[in-house]
Amino acid sequence: MEKKSESRTITTDGRLLLGVMERDGVETVWDRLKAQQPQCGYCDLGLSCRNCAMGPCRIDPFGEGPQLGVCGADADIIVARNLGRMIAAGAAAHSDHGRDLVEVLAAVARDEAPGYGIGDEEKLRRVAAEYGIDTAGVRGAKEIAADLADALFEEYGTRKGHLTMAGRAPAARRETWKRLNITPRGVDRETSEMMHRTHMGVDNGWQSLLLHGLRNALSDGWGGSMIATEVSDILFGTPAPRPTKVNVGVLREDEVNIVVHGHNPVVSEMVLRAATNPELIALAGERGAAGINVAGLCCTGNELLMRHGIPIAGNHLMSELVLGTGAVDLMLVDYQCIMPSLGAIAPCYHTKMVSTSDKARFPGMEHIEFHPDNAAAEADHLVHLAIDSYGRRGRVTIPVEPVDAVGGFSVEAIIGALGGTPAPLVEAIRVGKVRGAVGVVGCNNPKITHDFGHVELTRELIGHDCLVVDTGCAAVANAKAGFKVNEAVRYAGPGLREVCDALGIPPVLHLGSCVDNVRILVLAAALADHLGVDISDLPLAGAAPEWYSEKAVSIAAYFVASGVHTVLGPMPPVGGSANVVNLLTVGLTDLLGASFSVEPDPHQASLLIRRHIEAKRKGLGLSHEVPQ
Amino acid sequence: MEKKSESRTITTDGRLLLGVMERDGVETVWDRLKAQQPQCGYCDLGLSCRNCAMGPCRIDPFGEGPQLGVCGADADIIVARNLGRMIAAGAAAHSDHGRDLVEVLAAVARDEAPGYGIGDEEKLRRVAAEYGIDTAGVRGAKEIAADLADALFEEYGTRKGHLTMAGRAPAARRETWKRLNITPRGVDRETSEMMHRTHMGVDNGWQSLLLHGLRNALSDGWGGSMIATEVSDILFGTPAPRPTKVNVGVLREDEVNIVVHGHNPVVSEMVLRAATNPELIALAGERGAAGINVAGLCCTGNELLMRHGIPIAGNHLMSELVLGTGAVDLMLVDYQCIMPSLGAIAPCYHTKMVSTSDKARFPGMEHIEFHPDNAAAEADHLVHLAIDSYGRRGRVTIPVEPVDAVGGFSVEAIIGALGGTPAPLVEAIRVGKVRGAVGVVGCNNPKITHDFGHVELTRELIGHDCLVVDTGCAAVANAKAGFKVNEAVRYAGPGLREVCDALGIPPVLHLGSCVDNVRILVLAAALADHLGVDISDLPLAGAAPEWYSEKAVSIAAYFVASGVHTVLGPMPPVGGSANVVNLLTVGLTDLLGASFSVEPDPHQASLLIRRHIEAKRKGLGLSHEVPQ
Repeated sequence: MEKKSESRTITTDGRLLLGVMERDGVETVWDRLKAQQPQCGYCDLGLSCRNCAMGPCRIDPFGEGPQLGVCGADADIIVARNLGRMIAAGAAAHSDHGRDLVEVLAAVARDEAPGYGIGDEEKLRRVAAEYGIDTAGVRGAKEIAADLADALFEEYGTRKGHLTMAGRAPAARRETWKRLNITPRGVDRETSEMMHRTHMGVDNGWQSLLLHGLRNALSDGWGGSMIATEVSDILFGTPAPRPTKVNVGVLREDEVNIVVHGHNPVVSEMVLRAATNPELIALAGERGAAGINVAGLCCTGNELLMRHGIPIAGNHLMSELVLGTGAVDLMLVDYQCIMPSLGAIAPCYHTKMVSTSDKARFPGMEHIEFHPDNAAAEADHLVHLAIDSYGRRGRVTIPVEPVDAVGGFSVEAIIGALGGTPAPLVEAIRVGKVRGAVGVVGCNNPKITHDFGHVELTRELIGHDCLVVDTGCAAVANAKAGFKVNEAVRYAGPGLREVCDALGIPPVLHLGSCVDNVRILVLAAALADHLGVDISDLPLAGAAPEWYSEKAVSIAAYFVASGVHTVLGPMPPVGGSANVVNLLTVGLTDLLGASFSVEPDPHQASLLIRRHIEAKRKGLGLSHEVPQ
Repeated sequence: MEKKSESRTITTDGRLLLGVMERDGVETVWDRLKAQQPQCGYCDLGLSCRNCAMGPCRIDPFGEGPQLGVCGADADIIVARNLGRMIAAGAAAHSDHGRDLVEVLAAVARDEAPGYGIGDEEKLRRVAAEYGIDTAGVRGAKEIAADLADALFEEYGTRKGHLTMAGRAPAARRETWKRLNITPRGVDRETSEMMHRTHMGVDNGWQSLLLHGLRNALSDGWGGSMIATEVSDILFGTPAPRPTKVNVGVLREDEVNIVVHGHNPVVSEMVLRAATNPELIALAGERGAAGINVAGLCCTGNELLMRHGIPIAGNHLMSELVLGTGAVDLMLVDYQCIMPSLGAIAPCYHTKMVSTSDKARFPGMEHIEFHPDNAAAEADHLVHLAIDSYGRRGRVTIPVEPVDAVGGFSVEAIIGALGGTPAPLVEAIRVGKVRGAVGVVGCNNPKITHDFGHVELTRELIGHDCLVVDTGCAAVANAKAGFKVNEAVRYAGPGLREVCDALGIPPVLHLGSCVDNVRILVLAAALADHLGVDISDLPLAGAAPEWYSEKAVSIAAYFVASGVHTVLGPMPPVGGSANVVNLLTVGLTDLLGASFSVEPDPHQASLLIRRHIEAKRKGLGLSHEVPQ
């Protein structure tokens, strides 16, 4: 049993809780993955098509059976269409999340969102100015917020023909997009057009499908996700570094534990607010609890961590296991990456499960719908439910002590730490103390030993003087591994260590949730603009060592389309088309100055990334070496 | 061989051309369907999931293997998610088509679309007024067009919270949508939200997924498709009845034949214009041709047929076979339902294949991209190509004579034929001469003998005094069967015959292309409003006897959500979830007053429809009988 849990996760808390759940006869994601073996080879290679009722169709990868679907589509077309729909779903998820925040902003402007407000008026004015909105001092924040919300809604429409925030990319990059005709025109439009193109009898060019996939992804990266991040900062404050703690040890045996899970800060911010309500804290005290403890899971956890230093209990593959502690009195979910299994596992312990979004229901959960106008009141109600639930606890197992970490590295905070300009970081890269920077991002996937991909890749990279910035589940993995305190410079190579020591920052910077990958884009654009080059000229790379979601596919695609070479751990379902694989891994370099690699072994992935970075250093005329 | 072609199509031209293609060793859609046997049972039942890279997953329909995907999703969730994405793709296809027309309208307003103009200014003013636009006589058509284009673009965005055209539905219907929270808010928004909801860990409520599917479909029916139809009428004229001819006999041995295939009239209208250019006709004459003949295939053919009486060579399953005539000098495609096999078949004959849309490429076709600013010029260029191609013809086989038909029954034309009010039709229904009306719509599917479903169902319905309105491939099938001339009243029951004779209309009215299914919605709303009832109270039904496409799924869903009971021929991929099947076929009746049936046998389908119609007659207090 020990052996099995070791192959499942590298984390101590994960291994111990896997033991608890095995003891309790609770099935987890790894058991379900095992039961699904063998997984369908056609689907895994992208060679099955269900896009119409003349099908379903399958292309025989061995060339012996059918090579064409009923309509006549071949492997290239089918694989490209399937990949296109993955990007569409990922872009839609992020962008719809962004829209929800714009709706809150609009409601705040109308005074119809009690409890919400403008958390960063300076940023409100800065982003509004980008949209050409009058931000003269005499105009109140709410007036400006109303205009900005209106302008952001417009980004989801189609009239302008381009997204305003795409203007943040370096000029050379925007020229490339124009040349390839992939400048994103509207946030929803590109998703809608991808669904159109992948309908039977529309786009049967595998190249044109993939190019539109890049445009669709750009409408996420420089559109929906960027709106999500910027408006979250405006509403709830732009993150700044602050200490926190991570892993299931952040749950408290003697307090009411509320775990927030999902992605959107709209609900979790209100719950955090309610948890500091003195009346509710007093009520928790009356029930024998020493306090009310809000902890995060996944990206809504990252959102609270970034802005308030709220501790985080775990990432994607910990979301079932935390229930095994018996210490989660209430788990509240919004949307994305919430396994529907949770509603079935919770009753094995005492956890009250509540879903909150009008667009996400789950079996076995009570549904309490949050809207801007009722959120503050409903949040109080939820804390009541958590306090009630605390009294129903059974056996509690919190098997580890939490680990220290620092989060909150928004671009504003990073530039601030550098003294108000990217110059010191650029200089450190120029002289070679820092070889380059790598975004380690993305999910967990039970096909990869939990956190192994993130932690080993990050360890290798910082050990070789590459600064790592991370988000999402990768960020939580790296925090649990102890990489996010200043003392973690002991894992860093000598150059990176010197720079981190001088700046007082850890070698791995927590940039936020998965929509916050756009902070990496903005930082990369700032570095490129400072040097007067394109993003693709910089010694940068991206990696998603344990990705699983369609959102990750969209993120990886907008990274590459923005000029950042990206290495994926798990293979995407494109193996059935040599043409598609070749374009994604080789051909895109000519078009975009960046492409994809797939390498599940983190040590090999590190080597690929370091070679790429050294090649980019060479291109910039900087010192370079040949990584072995 | 004769036997095989008989099982493939009921049409004479189809059978003969199947023989030609077999002789020539050309593979067709039926051969590819055969080669794909057995098709995957998991996909066919909706039980496979590829929405993330923890999968692909499969649910065992026999209950012996896995009952949960890796995330924990069960059969109900997986089936509902898959159906949701089909609706999203269908709605996106229609809506993106609508957007293309709005872009032309905006370009016309800016004087940047040479060759295009306002074809129906009265309708422009009428629709503009619906959007609250100042339509005072002093304002020029282009000024109004600019405002209307702007207002229609806004429908794709999200700020209003509801679609203006949804206001055309009867009040009771709009109340139902409001109660169920499925009022469509934005055209692209609902598609984007569906893609978000079906991402891993978002909506895991099969009921909420299906309800959003209805909202997504309504954003098509009362949104994207309705915009497509209305703007097409504004640009190219509102259809009125006019005679035409149908089947491959419309190709001319002695003329240059240009076949337009696809859906959007934007390109085909310009080609039709170029084909009447005297210089080009003279050039064709110099090359030995007696003229230039434009014929349609599929829905762009229906668009031309409706507005100009242009003949139509066939529907979906004829699109490969027409090439076998050797008489198609140029086939021009825009998008949707264009089999990618065409580019491989064309070289077996002499046909020049040209793709025209920036969002639809095809292997083996030359790509000449049409935009509003270059369309007129490119259309001339295409006609030149066709004339050149004429000179390269080999053996020509046009094996049948064309059949007469009348098309062009817009709602405006129908109400016109009724004397300016729906009263005569309502009265005919009230007294029982006409029992009810049925929309026979949708595609062809090689799983059903070509045209058999449409023609047999229509024959039964008109024989039993049900008025049939049809669109899309169904409309072409019924035209070929001879149901669309006034003499076709000989197939009608005595009551319908009397009414048709009195009004001088055929018993089967051609309402247009597949986006024109919205004409059926508008007509149904007019009848309901005239009687002061909801659409679901009327003796109406819909049928898609040979559907194959995701667009058809969206259409069927907006029919049902609008209160029209709909019978599908082929089974959609939902059989893996008894809950989903039950909700769609039974449960929706309580919510919407309409639901789905699945019945591939047209005779049984007719019986289901007639029973439904008689039940509705009973509900309205009208004479009713029990169909046997």
